Amino acid sequence: MLINIDRQSTKDHIYQQIYREIKNTILENKLSPSEKLPSKRGLAKELGVSINSVTNAYEQLLAEGYIYTVERKGYYVEDIKQFMSPQELSVRPDFPEDLKEKAMDDQDGWISLSHISTDISMFPFNEWIKCEKMAIKYHAEELSEVSHPQGPYLVRQTIARLIAVSRGVICEPEQVIIGPGTQPLLWQIMNMLPLSITTAIENPGYSRLYQQLKDTNHHVIPIPLDEKGIDMNRVEELNPNLLIITPSHQFPTGIIMPISKRLEILNWTVNHKHTYIVEDDYDSEFKYGTDNIPSLQSLDRHQRVIYTGTFSKTIMSGLRISYFVLPPDLLREYRRKYSNWIQGSNALSLYTLHYFIESGEYTKHIKRMNNSYEQKRELLVKELQSRFKKDIYINDIRAGLHFLAEFKTNHTYEDVSEKAIQKKLEIYPLTRFMLDGQLVGTDKIVLVIGFASIASEEIPEAVQRLYEIFYEDEKGSSRL
Amino acid sequence: MLINIDRQSTKDHIYQQIYREIKNTILENKLSPSEKLPSKRGLAKELGVSINSVTNAYEQLLAEGYIYTVERKGYYVEDIKQFMSPQELSVRPDFPEDLKEKAMDDQDGWISLSHISTDISMFPFNEWIKCEKMAIKYHAEELSEVSHPQGPYLVRQTIARLIAVSRGVICEPEQVIIGPGTQPLLWQIMNMLPLSITTAIENPGYSRLYQQLKDTNHHVIPIPLDEKGIDMNRVEELNPNLLIITPSHQFPTGIIMPISKRLEILNWTVNHKHTYIVEDDYDSEFKYGTDNIPSLQSLDRHQRVIYTGTFSKTIMSGLRISYFVLPPDLLREYRRKYSNWIQGSNALSLYTLHYFIESGEYTKHIKRMNNSYEQKRELLVKELQSRFKKDIYINDIRAGLHFLAEFKTNHTYEDVSEKAIQKKLEIYPLTRFMLDGQLVGTDKIVLVIGFASIASEEIPEAVQRLYEIFYEDEKGSSRL
Repeated sequence: MLINIDRQSTKDHIYQQIYREIKNTILENKLSPSEKLPSKRGLAKELGVSINSVTNAYEQLLAEGYIYTVERKGYYVEDIKQFMSPQELSVRPDFPEDLKEKAMDDQDGWISLSHISTDISMFPFNEWIKCEKMAIKYHAEELSEVSHPQGPYLVRQTIARLIAVSRGVICEPEQVIIGPGTQPLLWQIMNMLPLSITTAIENPGYSRLYQQLKDTNHHVIPIPLDEKGIDMNRVEELNPNLLIITPSHQFPTGIIMPISKRLEILNWTVNHKHTYIVEDDYDSEFKYGTDNIPSLQSLDRHQRVIYTGTFSKTIMSGLRISYFVLPPDLLREYRRKYSNWIQGSNALSLYTLHYFIESGEYTKHIKRMNNSYEQKRELLVKELQSRFKKDIYINDIRAGLHFLAEFKTNHTYEDVSEKAIQKKLEIYPLTRFMLDGQLVGTDKIVLVIGFASIASEEIPEAVQRLYEIFYEDEKGSSRL
Repeated sequence: MLINIDRQSTKDHIYQQIYREIKNTILENKLSPSEKLPSKRGLAKELGVSINSVTNAYEQLLAEGYIYTVERKGYYVEDIKQFMSPQELSVRPDFPEDLKEKAMDDQDGWISLSHISTDISMFPFNEWIKCEKMAIKYHAEELSEVSHPQGPYLVRQTIARLIAVSRGVICEPEQVIIGPGTQPLLWQIMNMLPLSITTAIENPGYSRLYQQLKDTNHHVIPIPLDEKGIDMNRVEELNPNLLIITPSHQFPTGIIMPISKRLEILNWTVNHKHTYIVEDDYDSEFKYGTDNIPSLQSLDRHQRVIYTGTFSKTIMSGLRISYFVLPPDLLREYRRKYSNWIQGSNALSLYTLHYFIESGEYTKHIKRMNNSYEQKRELLVKELQSRFKKDIYINDIRAGLHFLAEFKTNHTYEDVSEKAIQKKLEIYPLTRFMLDGQLVGTDKIVLVIGFASIASEEIPEAVQRLYEIFYEDEKGSSRL
């Protein structure tokens, strides 16, 4: 056995070199199975190294199973058959070109009218860290343990209290299931119900969720809206087991579902066993000019509404704290199915959230953001109307973090989308949310305009770019 | 219309009282559909309140759809049919007794030999918060946005570098999928493969995962172990599509899979298309006396190993940051299926983790914990051996956060478990991890003994209680 030692190596200790050399010799089949290795003392002497170095190398080889030991006799080579050579092993396979991620496009100079992002600039991170320190002080033990599958009881209690006050939701902390997002929680619910369930979803609607459900082979059908929300005639025809709706502020049209439609839906479920409504209350915290609209769940006396809320819009999306409120029957089934599930939301953030709510900082932050968003919304609506005049119709429902705007134009969606990239304006055409891909009229373009993440100072420039997108001819001069 | 106003109310504003009174009148059907409401000025005069109060009440009723407005004419009652009375609505349904959660048992005086919890007392929370402040400073924008389905590229890059050095894992950041736990990530993988796949899992093994998979109707088969790890004869008979193993430190037996078995498994996959191995490296960071054992993935040249790691043991379980490293073929399929998935791990913690690793704090913490765990382990082994002498056999594999101990005894597992509760000692019998419920011999009791969460000072007392559990007769006096 030839062992080369590099005494000057700063990379590897002597014992690591001995270990590697012997390992490779074994993998190359240059030592036969059951062959005896030199004694530790003998090899140390031969190599001119300490016995310690040889001992460490032998221990590592032993731990990994390259050699075995017979008491009072010594170390022997294990029987390791049929394997590639160390040369082959050193070859790193090429990573396929099509899977490489492209570097993010340069975001410089872009303005966004996205409905997704929120304004993080006013978030009181210092207060958050104060609450986090309390979480660490009082709950360090719990952070290292596996928590209740539904999340810590203390935090569920706080959420139950919060939504009782702000949304009229009637529930016990037992009914709250915390999770790292609406998607995974919905997955859990869907995997609880029989495999053949049919899910109905609003159209236009939340296309990301729709696609995700389709991609994972769920049976999900888009249902059109009338002026009050989801078309109940179509729901009755389809007879779905799960009906996912956004009554507080329909996404993306902004419709606030009127009481008559709410009662119609609740009455419908009463006559259909094993049917549940998912009330997705994704941005109900923001209302301008009116108080909050009580949740659909607050009217439900037959325990058919699954209320779902999130802190993604009110705190930040990256927090990954959402929750479902399950009716008792579903809760019983959930417990049966997920008693071995591990809560997925970050416990440090959950306990921090508890103190953030309890201290009143959460409500303060929502008020502050409600004012700020209201101002930005008004400014944006005003700028749009004064720039586009009769060529714009804004569906002025004063709620949430986005609104629909209809532009009279002969441009196509492709034109407008392409021009928007040139102008570095991030826009979301309504077509993106048409779940079955149909168009939205031919003499107009409808955009879903978000106002949460844009800075007030950028609003005039955003409107100017939008104007140029619609009215600038190829030479760059305005037609009007 | 009779409207009672309580001018002294500190609970409700005047407009809220008017709103509620009119709402209830409508729900009680005391106003007919299309009936005209008094003018704002008229009602204000009648009630002796400001016009503003009536306006706010009407606006809220309008937003919720109780009334509608006809331009220049006034406000009218909507058509709301068939609903329960406000009296019925005020009844809160009883919450079923069987779903109520019991208050946690008093933990006072208990000592735990759990293998699950880790020692949080030495975690450098101050350094963590420093890193968190950097995350906030440099990534605030990203925190309010929806991140890449696999997690932020920057963090995947850091993880890829970390496991290349510490575990020999060969991968690009593109292959890393971050998620809030091994369970949900495994669910995603299983939902990608055909519905009829067979999964093999080690027995004894990770019973929580096994139960969870069974509870959600996955086809999962326990496979017994031989002295080197999973029994490959049984694997070949079953021919599973997914083989979940813990080669670095088998859970719960502690077996470190020797190189010969590793190569046998890798060679087996080469001959079986559409077969993948999940290498669950749940606690490989802790090795006492030897260096880390290179991962199975580091030997895989046919891209059949899904490497999975976690920060649950090295940082804390409540962090919910785990990751899978997918072979290119599975990655391609993952992207196809989950392009609309929202990353479930907390972005603030992910960026914090990035700085925690980059600053060297992570490696420092692992070294510190490795020393501390090694000392606790040695103390516990010594105490057990000197107390139980020939009646104990400890499978002394110096790795991970737990070991197996065999006690010669005629007691049953039921006896011992019951006695442990009396003695306030949390123990985990091996039977808990026997996936098909078989017994483990009749003249011995095997315990999975964790040493991570117990304090050094408590070790003698824990061993004393264990001794009493085995040897104290009913009267409380020791038999030996």
